[in-house]
Amino acid sequence: MLLLYHNLMSVPSRFVRLVLAECKAGAELTEILPWDRKEDFLLVNPAGSVPVLRENDGPPVCSASVIAEYLDETRGYSLGTRRLLPDHPNGRAEVRRLMQWFLEKAVDESGQFFIEEKIYKRMRRPGEGGGPPDSTTLRAARGNLKIHLKYIAYLAERRNWLAGEQFSYADLAAGAFLSTIDYLGEVPWDKEPVVKDWYQRIKSRPAFRPILADSIKGIPAANHYMDLDF
Amino acid sequence: MLLLYHNLMSVPSRFVRLVLAECKAGAELTEILPWDRKEDFLLVNPAGSVPVLRENDGPPVCSASVIAEYLDETRGYSLGTRRLLPDHPNGRAEVRRLMQWFLEKAVDESGQFFIEEKIYKRMRRPGEGGGPPDSTTLRAARGNLKIHLKYIAYLAERRNWLAGEQFSYADLAAGAFLSTIDYLGEVPWDKEPVVKDWYQRIKSRPAFRPILADSIKGIPAANHYMDLDF
Repeated sequence: MLLLYHNLMSVPSRFVRLVLAECKAGAELTEILPWDRKEDFLLVNPAGSVPVLRENDGPPVCSASVIAEYLDETRGYSLGTRRLLPDHPNGRAEVRRLMQWFLEKAVDESGQFFIEEKIYKRMRRPGEGGGPPDSTTLRAARGNLKIHLKYIAYLAERRNWLAGEQFSYADLAAGAFLSTIDYLGEVPWDKEPVVKDWYQRIKSRPAFRPILADSIKGIPAANHYMDLDF
Repeated sequence: MLLLYHNLMSVPSRFVRLVLAECKAGAELTEILPWDRKEDFLLVNPAGSVPVLRENDGPPVCSASVIAEYLDETRGYSLGTRRLLPDHPNGRAEVRRLMQWFLEKAVDESGQFFIEEKIYKRMRRPGEGGGPPDSTTLRAARGNLKIHLKYIAYLAERRNWLAGEQFSYADLAAGAFLSTIDYLGEVPWDKEPVVKDWYQRIKSRPAFRPILADSIKGIPAANHYMDLDF
């Protein structure tokens, strides 16, 4: 049995939910609020961060990239040609580079600001770090998002999928990143037709369905968020 | 042929140099200054960060954890019982968790402040971000270092090596982290005898020798930095 500690709007958590769905591996979900730092969860992951995966009585598998390796080692072979890491070490290195790019760099430079300003600040009370979004921070997040969209377009123009011929963790990482921002209606799709075309392909995969059904109390998704034809 | 883009005081770069030495794989080194952002290096790694490894005409392998996976895939088997990632997926997940802990979390919370304040600020000119170290930042770095030393002690008291029975990437990551701070004489060894004992074991490995010979112009290493009996 698989148990996933996650947060609905954490990009690395969404990535793992997508990977699990691609592996057709069901997991029980437990939501963790990033500012909670509850002691029982710190015993699971002393870093206090999500996602964390547990399988049966095994030790906690902490962080998205470590979970991705674990799922490849335990499920990858059975996926056959749908395996999410290529066979060749060079191809694997490229997938891992992009996985890190979208789960860490893009989140640090853009994604986390949207989530903090437009979601987490609304979920917390005023005395606990809640409040209205900061427009300067959002402007910076939008500026940096443009650069990451250009990079996705650059890759999608030259390759079948982001890391090469094969659909991979790289696409799921970029998809998790964009889906979070798209929930908030902050992706300028019309300006990036190549990215839109790539996202349409990934969005229509069955593994994406649960992500598109996500909903946060009091913060509804953008109108087109669920539409496959947006 | 292997080519490594690195920085002498970057913890992830030191980690890769240690891994290469454990694999007995020689590499040509090219030093990159983090604030340089030269165009020819951005073509190698668009993220602009080190370490980056290239093998023959292969594509760049970017970031320490991706290089660690690459070297395990291409050299791990030949290391036999000295392999730096265990065989079992659970053991691998634990090594990867700790590798991330020491190369990312410990660096973000402590290591990078020592390096920025005590090295990089002295290497840059006043108009380019150079200047004296900020004492408040250093105080925070020292406070956070204590927590990471306690964590190493916690692990070293319970296990033969940090991730379990076997010497692994986890030890090399923690060793790279501490060696950088030790160069600056900032590790309070006397207060953490268990950590000192573990570090003495790793410091005496042949792979550590090139690291102990490191020297930065104008910023000499602490007196005991090279001593195996410190």
